[in-house]
Formats: sequence, structure tokens, C-alpha cells
Amino acid sequence: MSALPAPLAISLGDPAGIGPEVILGAWARLRAERRAPPVFVVGGPELLRGCAEALGIDCPIVPIADPSEALFASAVGLPVLALLEGPWHPAQPSPEGARLALTSLQLAAKCALAGVASGLVTAPVSKGALAAIGWDYPGQTEFLADACGRPYRDAVMMLAGPSLRTVPLTVHVALAEVPALLSAELIVHKARIVAEGLRRDFGIAQPRLAIAALNPHAGEGGQFGDEEARIIAPAIAALQAEGVAATGPIPGDALFTPRARAGYDAALCMYHDQALIPLKALEFDEGVNVTLGLPIIRTSPDHGTAYDIAGQGVADPGAMAAAIVMAAEMAAARATAGA
Amino acid sequence: MSALPAPLAISLGDPAGIGPEVILGAWARLRAERRAPPVFVVGGPELLRGCAEALGIDCPIVPIADPSEALFASAVGLPVLALLEGPWHPAQPSPEGARLALTSLQLAAKCALAGVASGLVTAPVSKGALAAIGWDYPGQTEFLADACGRPYRDAVMMLAGPSLRTVPLTVHVALAEVPALLSAELIVHKARIVAEGLRRDFGIAQPRLAIAALNPHAGEGGQFGDEEARIIAPAIAALQAEGVAATGPIPGDALFTPRARAGYDAALCMYHDQALIPLKALEFDEGVNVTLGLPIIRTSPDHGTAYDIAGQGVADPGAMAAAIVMAAEMAAARATAGA
Repeated sequence: MSALPAPLAISLGDPAGIGPEVILGAWARLRAERRAPPVFVVGGPELLRGCAEALGIDCPIVPIADPSEALFASAVGLPVLALLEGPWHPAQPSPEGARLALTSLQLAAKCALAGVASGLVTAPVSKGALAAIGWDYPGQTEFLADACGRPYRDAVMMLAGPSLRTVPLTVHVALAEVPALLSAELIVHKARIVAEGLRRDFGIAQPRLAIAALNPHAGEGGQFGDEEARIIAPAIAALQAEGVAATGPIPGDALFTPRARAGYDAALCMYHDQALIPLKALEFDEGVNVTLGLPIIRTSPDHGTAYDIAGQGVADPGAMAAAIVMAAEMAAARATAGA
Repeated sequence: MSALPAPLAISLGDPAGIGPEVILGAWARLRAERRAPPVFVVGGPELLRGCAEALGIDCPIVPIADPSEALFASAVGLPVLALLEGPWHPAQPSPEGARLALTSLQLAAKCALAGVASGLVTAPVSKGALAAIGWDYPGQTEFLADACGRPYRDAVMMLAGPSLRTVPLTVHVALAEVPALLSAELIVHKARIVAEGLRRDFGIAQPRLAIAALNPHAGEGGQFGDEEARIIAPAIAALQAEGVAATGPIPGDALFTPRARAGYDAALCMYHDQALIPLKALEFDEGVNVTLGLPIIRTSPDHGTAYDIAGQGVADPGAMAAAIVMAAEMAAARATAGA
């Protein structure tokens, strides 16, 4: 093992979106605050230079030929792998831009898998733009699961902010379909991955998982809904039997009070909004999307390409900065755990 | 009209629950802070005196024979109507206690309807204990609708805290049943009541209503769920056509960020937890349950009887205090609007 940690790889994202500007803004902010970890952006040195100049972002670009140069280049500016290039046309999605985003993501994943990057931070892509060039994945997370040789269901999305971590057990499905998608097996499978991820990458020796109810008041003893008794409670019992500190089912509205939040390390939620509403209400622009269950560390800011504001210099780089810092902390925790 | 506002009537709630102690604690706190509005508790002077003594709550009790005595009695202590009495047996629910709770609620409602009270604050009851003595209502709100001669659907629950008001359009039903219960007619009906309530009782001349989506990302253009296009958007269009400032459908997780909250006066939510999760995450022990759509003003603390901690003196009176203050503010706004 090297004495120095490997840098983080940052994929460029869709160059027509806010990816380039939030990467630049985040790194400039972290550098000014003297807390920028070693990173390199995978592709687009000229694109990023043009973006920084146009938007007046104080972020010198240092083209590098190999990830191994990133650590020393960081002293001068933002290291950017010079293997890929493209034009900066903000708010103008194109097949060329989608291809650049995809190549950057693929190469960044390879760097992380090969260990020349200690983790991967992904800027936002457009699923629509990627689908138009033949990409066939629901999102970057599933693409990365495939790149790691893992089934989609092993890649578990966790939203993490300074005071709250939540995991939606079902994600981009109609609310009407949620009850039929839940099973004790699903809950147990994902809870195991979350517990292991919190141990390995967050340094939490005995992770405490709070499991949400599906129905209001947890169904009030079966008066409105039986998923708590039929699915969720048996899953919790199974987890407890194998030593996972799982509690619940806890009514959704009781799960996110300050007192409740102090009692767990992650809340496992039955559907998208149950996990995302409290996260965005409480952590708003500091929420980081973490992928657990893969061999590589991966974080991303919890926002999309935002074509509508791209190139105006108004995009908040806070979430990207938080994603970079969290990936670095996870890499450090994993290195410690593995030492 | 009298020059002085009528006092608020406070129903006793289940005497085996935390109702008595939070009434005493709330009034003592508000009095110490010199912001106690004129109130009277409907029944139980000896019961409340015993509770205050046992728990060491500094709250002198002033038995009164008629609500008209409440204003002057307030200078000495907490006015309590001496028409009803019962023993204080905390944590020991009984038919006698349920009957006392019911009689107090009935009488308090009559006072509000007759105008000798400017509004009604209800302490928590146990639906189970009331059902055991033959009470046949889903909750106090439906009972009050009936007492006012209004259909249940006209009584709209709004949860209100210092920085957020939310309205669940469906309440105590299984999550699986929610999609089938939604209709444009339901949304329009309840939105009208909310808009009128905010005008009349909260002094908001042009209430801004944010209408939540049902599905994650508002269904992402129909990819997961069509309720937004089929039900919610038409309801919003109908509301706008009649001059209600309604916007949406807004994805649930986008609706409660600080920036989003600044843009509306109330968020109308499709199901219980969508409304209650952000309220309790952000306002926790200051959430007040307000009933809109009835001729009387009614608030209640957003908690139950909590038999498990009743009589220990540990119940937080904050929500009851907030409910009393909000009812007084609503009564003042209504008096101003009607002046």
C-alpha cells in the first residue's frame, strides 16, 4: 500500500448541466477553506478552464496525464485528466456532451476499481440525453453496480447530511406500487448492506438502524394497513437475530424529531419521499447521495443537471463540496478499518 | 358585541392521560411569561388542584360558576368551570374518566358555539376509552363537526408550527388506499376551506397554497404514476380559475426546503406522513393541530393521552401552550376580520 491515500476521481457529468461549474466552485471553496482533499477530474481541462473563466471562478486548472500526478498537481490547482476533452455549451444538451459524460463516468469508475482513485464522486448526468445515445440504465448507480459486477439490488442509495442519514428501500416507483414491492427479504437485504457500509466506510462499530413504518401511526395496531405486522416487524426480528441493531417499525412522523434522530445512525424508509422529505427539510443543500454495497466508494451531490440555470454561475456548489468531503472521509475510514 | 374578547374554553381531555398536567403546565408557563390569554377549563377544579399539588405545578385554581367570570378570575389563577368534577387517577383509564372527558368536550363545544368562548382548545382523549362507553366517532374533530352541524369532510385538519403549516388531505388510512381516495374534487374542496380559514383566522389576505405531488419527482412526467396529471394538476387549475393562489404539483421532497417554505402559507399534502414528517422534523414540540372549516375556532396539541407517562410530571406542556396561544391569535384575527 502507498503511504499517501489515492486521490478521489470526479466524473465531469453532463457538460451542458451545472456539473462543471459546481465542481469548480466546490473545489475553489474547499481549497480556500484549506480542506480540499486530493482529487482529479476525469476529463475536460479546456472545458473546465473555459467555464471557470466565463463564470469568474478562481480555480486554476492543472492538466495531468495520469492519476498518479494528481497529488502533487493539487498544490497548484485542480488536477484534470487530459485524456478527454469537449466544448462547454451550458444549457445546450447534445449527443457529444452525453458521450463525454459517459466516457468520463466509465473512466472514473475504472480508476476507482483499479485503486488509483480512493473513491468516486459523480457529477449529475441526464438520463434522457444518455438514453438518446443508447445508454440503457435507470441511473448512474445501476451503471456503477454493473461496472462492479454486482446486481442492481446490491447498490443501496443512502442520503446523508450532517445530522441525518436516510435510505429509501424503494425509489423511483409510483407510490401506489410501493406496498407490493416491500418484502421482509428486501428490508433484511438492504439493512445488512447499510449496516456493513456504516461499519466499513463511516467508522461506526455498532450501527443502529431505525426502520420506518409504512402506514400512519404504524397502522395503529392493524386498523389501517398490516404491512408493519406482516413484513416490517418480521424483518426487524430477523435482523436482530443476526446481531443487527435494528428497531421499529417506527411511525414516519415520529422518526425525524430531534430526539428520535439522536437514537440511530440511519433511518431505513419504505419509499422515496419518506426518506427524502426529512433529509431535504433538515439538510437542504448539504445532502449527499452515497452508494453503499459496491466495492468502490461513491458519492454524488443530491441534485440533477439543472440545465435551466447552467452557465449562469448561480448554481450552489455546496452539495458537490459536501459530496467530495464525504467521499474523502469514507476513504479515510475504510483505510483505517483495513489497516 | 362585548368590548372584551370572550375567553377560550379548554376541554379537560381524558383525566387519566397527560391532559390535566399539560393544561396546568401550559397555563403556568404562559402566565409566567405574561402571555396567557383569558381561558377557562371546562370542569374538574378539584381534579386539577390535586394534579397541580401532586406534581408541584405552580398554578392556582379558581373555580367559576359561569364562563363570564373567567376574565376576572384570570387575575388570580386558572379559571375552571365547577360544573363537572371527577377524581385524578393518572395512567388508569376508566369509564368514569371517559365520561368526564366527553362531557367536558360537549360543554366546551357548546360554549364555543354559543359565543361565550371565543374558541376551543381540546386536550387529548382516548378513542378506545370513549368507544368503550358508546362514543361512535373517529376522533374529536368529527365529533365537533357533528356538534356544529357540518359534514365530517368540512372539518379540515391543519398542522401549524412557527415556520410551517401543512394539511393532510387523507389522514388515518393505509398508505395503499391513498391513491384511490384522491380526487380533484377532494383537493378543491379542502383547498377552498384552507384558503378561507387562512384568510379569516390567520389574517392572510391572499393565502398561497402549495399542492404536493403524490409520486416521487411528481411522477417524472408520468414515468412513475399519473395522479399528478390526472388528478392534482386539474385541481390546481380549477383552484386558480376561481382565484385561489395554488401552485404545484410540487414533488414532496422539494416542498419543505427553507426556500420552498418561504413561498407558501400552507402545504396541502396527499397523505398523513407527507404532512406530518416535515412538521414534526422541523417544529417537533410546537406543532398545533388546527381544525378549519367549522364555525368555531378549534386547536389542540399534536399529541395523544400518553397514558404511559401520565402523572409523572414529565409531559412537555409546550404543545398545549402553543395550541392555546394559536387559538387566541386566531380569535383575535377573526374579531379583526369581522370588525
